Amino acid sequence: MAEGTQDGPVIDDGYVPPTEAVVALLGVLAYGTLVAFDRIAADARMAPDLRRRAMHSAMAAVEIGNYQRLADRLTELGADPDGAMAPFAGPLDAYHDSTQPRDWLEGLVKAYVGDGIADDFYREVARVLAPRDRELVLDVLHDTRYEDFASAEIRAAIAADPKVANRLALWARRLMGEALSQAQHVAAERDELTMLVLHGSGDIAGVMDLIKRLTAAHTDRMTSLGLNN
Amino acid sequence: MAEGTQDGPVIDDGYVPPTEAVVALLGVLAYGTLVAFDRIAADARMAPDLRRRAMHSAMAAVEIGNYQRLADRLTELGADPDGAMAPFAGPLDAYHDSTQPRDWLEGLVKAYVGDGIADDFYREVARVLAPRDRELVLDVLHDTRYEDFASAEIRAAIAADPKVANRLALWARRLMGEALSQAQHVAAERDELTMLVLHGSGDIAGVMDLIKRLTAAHTDRMTSLGLNN
Repeated sequence: MAEGTQDGPVIDDGYVPPTEAVVALLGVLAYGTLVAFDRIAADARMAPDLRRRAMHSAMAAVEIGNYQRLADRLTELGADPDGAMAPFAGPLDAYHDSTQPRDWLEGLVKAYVGDGIADDFYREVARVLAPRDRELVLDVLHDTRYEDFASAEIRAAIAADPKVANRLALWARRLMGEALSQAQHVAAERDELTMLVLHGSGDIAGVMDLIKRLTAAHTDRMTSLGLNN
Repeated sequence: MAEGTQDGPVIDDGYVPPTEAVVALLGVLAYGTLVAFDRIAADARMAPDLRRRAMHSAMAAVEIGNYQRLADRLTELGADPDGAMAPFAGPLDAYHDSTQPRDWLEGLVKAYVGDGIADDFYREVARVLAPRDRELVLDVLHDTRYEDFASAEIRAAIAADPKVANRLALWARRLMGEALSQAQHVAAERDELTMLVLHGSGDIAGVMDLIKRLTAAHTDRMTSLGLNN
């Protein structure tokens, strides 16, 4: 697998994130898993054979287990999962609507690249959470087993037909662009989320560093796929 | 939940089903789970809220875990899962294509009624299998947790608007008709399957009894939903 960002040091400065901020973070994560389930399940139809279709479907199924854990925790925090997710349905649906894969390979790149960016972001934000929520967030990050499957498939397709790399590189850039654009809408929905990221990063310069780290990790992933042209 | 057929007595007459028959049975079951995942996942989109959408998605996700167990057992038996499933893709896809739910309630009835018929059938056939495969088949039958969810939703919808019952009763009859029709195509694909059913039933009269039991269990389910008009 590509490296992504590392689990940073836990920020243990006595700061306790307000419940509304944790609810907002778990809410966006929960809606993200629910919509990812739906989209990845649909993309599985484009698989060239039943073995690959099953693997892609299994990738989708994991999302629902994660959703359940997030929804349970939201309920425990006194929040209604539907209400916690609702503000983020717009931007997350918009991301997926604007990045509908046209074939199997685009679907794999989307799962690999898109989930990679999201995981890196959540891994960073998790650092400011209390231990229990931090562990939950780190647990629901995507399974490397599926990342390995997706990246092996993409590399094999490029090896078989190098022209594919150019098209997929363009596609991955579009995914990154749409992800960044919708991330701003997500942040705009809830100030608490912005405050959480800001606290984890220290200040605005820290946020810039965070964006740099996410971009660098994305570039690493692209290189590992042979998509860095 | 509705009763369905009971786990009949195990048929222990020293008969060992030929591997090809077991492979065919697990193959049709495996393809059934894979396509059910896909269709139920798509139907989840029609849910009226996120909680119900998640529940329906979870119902789909279970299918993939079952698929994996069936594919593993096929591999263990020396069969290629794709090859074992391929003959049944035609009839099972045809069943789903001809029974696309138009709304959330039709999707629930399809999950409840369609899975109920399929489960009853597999439960009967399982009686002639060797213990290990019998347990696998009984294990991958649908979880009553989701059946309870589906039937409670359907009953609540009928209570809220009794006119709904008529439409859903017609729909359920269509599901039963299509299921029976495609079951014949499935059986026609592989003589081994027919032989398995025939052995479990004793003779043609036994097969007629089997069909009667399946029909009676279907009628019970319809009654329990308030759809028996």
